[in-house]
Amino acid sequence: MQFTEEMFAKHMRPITGSAIRDIFKLLARPGMISFAGGNPSNTSLEPEVISRLAVEALDKYGTTLLQYGATEGFGPFRESVAEFLRGDGVNCDSTQILPVQGGSQAFDLLLKVLVDPGDVVLCESPTFLGAIQAMREYNATIVDMPTDDEGVIVEAAEALIKKHHPKLMYVIPTFQNPTGITLSLERRKALAALASKYGVVIAEDDPYRDLRYAGEALPPIQSFDAEGWVVYMSSFSKYISPGLRLGAAVVKNPLLLRKMVIGKQSVDVHSPLLNQAIVDAYLRQGLMPGHLERICREYRKQLNAMLAGFDHFPVGTRHTVPQGGLFVWAELPGEMSAVKVFDDAIGESVAFVPGIHFYADGGHENTLRLNFSMCDIPTIEEGMKWLGKVISEKG
Amino acid sequence: MQFTEEMFAKHMRPITGSAIRDIFKLLARPGMISFAGGNPSNTSLEPEVISRLAVEALDKYGTTLLQYGATEGFGPFRESVAEFLRGDGVNCDSTQILPVQGGSQAFDLLLKVLVDPGDVVLCESPTFLGAIQAMREYNATIVDMPTDDEGVIVEAAEALIKKHHPKLMYVIPTFQNPTGITLSLERRKALAALASKYGVVIAEDDPYRDLRYAGEALPPIQSFDAEGWVVYMSSFSKYISPGLRLGAAVVKNPLLLRKMVIGKQSVDVHSPLLNQAIVDAYLRQGLMPGHLERICREYRKQLNAMLAGFDHFPVGTRHTVPQGGLFVWAELPGEMSAVKVFDDAIGESVAFVPGIHFYADGGHENTLRLNFSMCDIPTIEEGMKWLGKVISEKG
Repeated sequence: MQFTEEMFAKHMRPITGSAIRDIFKLLARPGMISFAGGNPSNTSLEPEVISRLAVEALDKYGTTLLQYGATEGFGPFRESVAEFLRGDGVNCDSTQILPVQGGSQAFDLLLKVLVDPGDVVLCESPTFLGAIQAMREYNATIVDMPTDDEGVIVEAAEALIKKHHPKLMYVIPTFQNPTGITLSLERRKALAALASKYGVVIAEDDPYRDLRYAGEALPPIQSFDAEGWVVYMSSFSKYISPGLRLGAAVVKNPLLLRKMVIGKQSVDVHSPLLNQAIVDAYLRQGLMPGHLERICREYRKQLNAMLAGFDHFPVGTRHTVPQGGLFVWAELPGEMSAVKVFDDAIGESVAFVPGIHFYADGGHENTLRLNFSMCDIPTIEEGMKWLGKVISEKG
Repeated sequence: MQFTEEMFAKHMRPITGSAIRDIFKLLARPGMISFAGGNPSNTSLEPEVISRLAVEALDKYGTTLLQYGATEGFGPFRESVAEFLRGDGVNCDSTQILPVQGGSQAFDLLLKVLVDPGDVVLCESPTFLGAIQAMREYNATIVDMPTDDEGVIVEAAEALIKKHHPKLMYVIPTFQNPTGITLSLERRKALAALASKYGVVIAEDDPYRDLRYAGEALPPIQSFDAEGWVVYMSSFSKYISPGLRLGAAVVKNPLLLRKMVIGKQSVDVHSPLLNQAIVDAYLRQGLMPGHLERICREYRKQLNAMLAGFDHFPVGTRHTVPQGGLFVWAELPGEMSAVKVFDDAIGESVAFVPGIHFYADGGHENTLRLNFSMCDIPTIEEGMKWLGKVISEKG
């Protein structure tokens, strides 16, 4: 017999994931200036440190790190992560920490344990494209919440909750991907109150929080939640290393934590112990504050170079001015199209992601996401100049 | 509002996963003799070797291992795994290798991309309890295939395929978990032919293959499949380390591989690169053959000690005589119950897993699974003596 597309589960058939992957393939071309990814800069990565910590961890824990471990996580890692997150204002203890394979897996597990096919999940519009793909794979009905310069518009969110009775809401409150926008303090409080009032689990995806270059840190939504409706999702991908694939979910509701543990158990049993021990040591040895200070100092300069580069863009272009994170979001004048100009930009060796990919229903062809962490300052300046030129001429 | 069980997705509500977890908690008691787990022996683990390989890998590849990588896997790992698996008779090249978080994730991805709620999945009866849990989480209808001393009975399997038109069949052909039984050569060929004739994907879960203590290795089912219907699932958990959480799926059908990659992408983006590089180095440095020889030598003795220990069991007890793997399966005389005797065995400090947990529909209370890899020979002898005594008296 012949294997055909019809053999796939219905929800998987339309998911091709190809557009973004095709973009990332282009990045391998020599001389390509990439504003497309979401990677930390190579200079922020510390192979010598990770190597030393791996040796120390295997020396200290021996075969324990190589045996099976508990799905709930490696004890020392849970403790040091709880302490680290408390420093960020997250209300938690170590028994509420679930190690995950990057923040994505925390959201995947929430979808798995909460969502029946067709159930509504609320998310920001635009939002992280990986989250859109995950919601599709669980056959969720994606409903967009309108946003403005302060993030999710709370009144609109409440109206959507009343209308759709969603079980789950996905929010990236700090330096959002793709827009770089930060949810205001009042709205953080208001979303926590909505979660509790209507019984909606909020997946608070907060992997960029400590990459702040200006302004004051805001408490997480989770800190305003007394009842355990908010699941806080952190990740060490942007702080230490994406290649280690390690994040942590904070789940205060024991019933929900238990079900997520069961969900994780049958996928991967547990997160790799060596990786948990390396990040544990990184935190315990106090390496994080100095490291964050160093990378924020560099990223701040890169962000500023990118913002200055908008001088080359057409009159009428609007863009966000993020206080941190990895992304700037731009809206070209309404009649222009970032999709149309994409091939020409690649021709000039500058890559970006058209904003259309961050909307579940597409559209918004005049928007684009630009990442500044992967390029040094001369490259950012050159890339913005060429991109501005191409958009002005062909957009 | 109050969070209640009714908020969970329907398929997750009945899954509590508690029975086995409760057993594993008991193992922490001092003096407990454990025949319950499926762990490799602690003496087989090599923290010094893994430590050295981690240093070498980070030295060689530097920041590459700490950045994001491709979901499809780390190039050198894909190459060395393809070569390793070809040595085991698997028909593959490196582009068909997908790194996964232990073999479990390969099956999870197959369920995710193939199974609509209610779809039938065929599996052996009894089978790996993690697979039962995974099938439930995807709301699959589990249909058992009858087995005998040579594994799945092919005629029965064909009748079930005709009746249920399943998309997926799950088989552990070598030293099966929980029975230790190996599927015969003729049946391997026959199952491959069924897959192709009826268009059924076979998930061939083969993590114990190289733990052979007697007899001749048989070619994998996959080697008889010319059309790409068989997905071969291997794992380094039993050979090198479960804590590293690394396995590999061989997916010859590019359409299916592509969809599995998409499914993995939104869960964990990719498997950790450091872990892939460590296993790659392990294989490239030629460490595997000598290591397997050493651990098989020990496991063979442990298996023999366990088999001898059945002398203490009641007359009428039947048990398998596996040629490899980690488990022996026992059937007590029909009127006896391994479930009933469990608490008394724990009282005598001997733990095992009642066979009931390996059947999707329960029953078979007179069966039990015994693992021999975690205990040294005097401990196995002592444990079997006590267990035989308890069963004889209370079973």
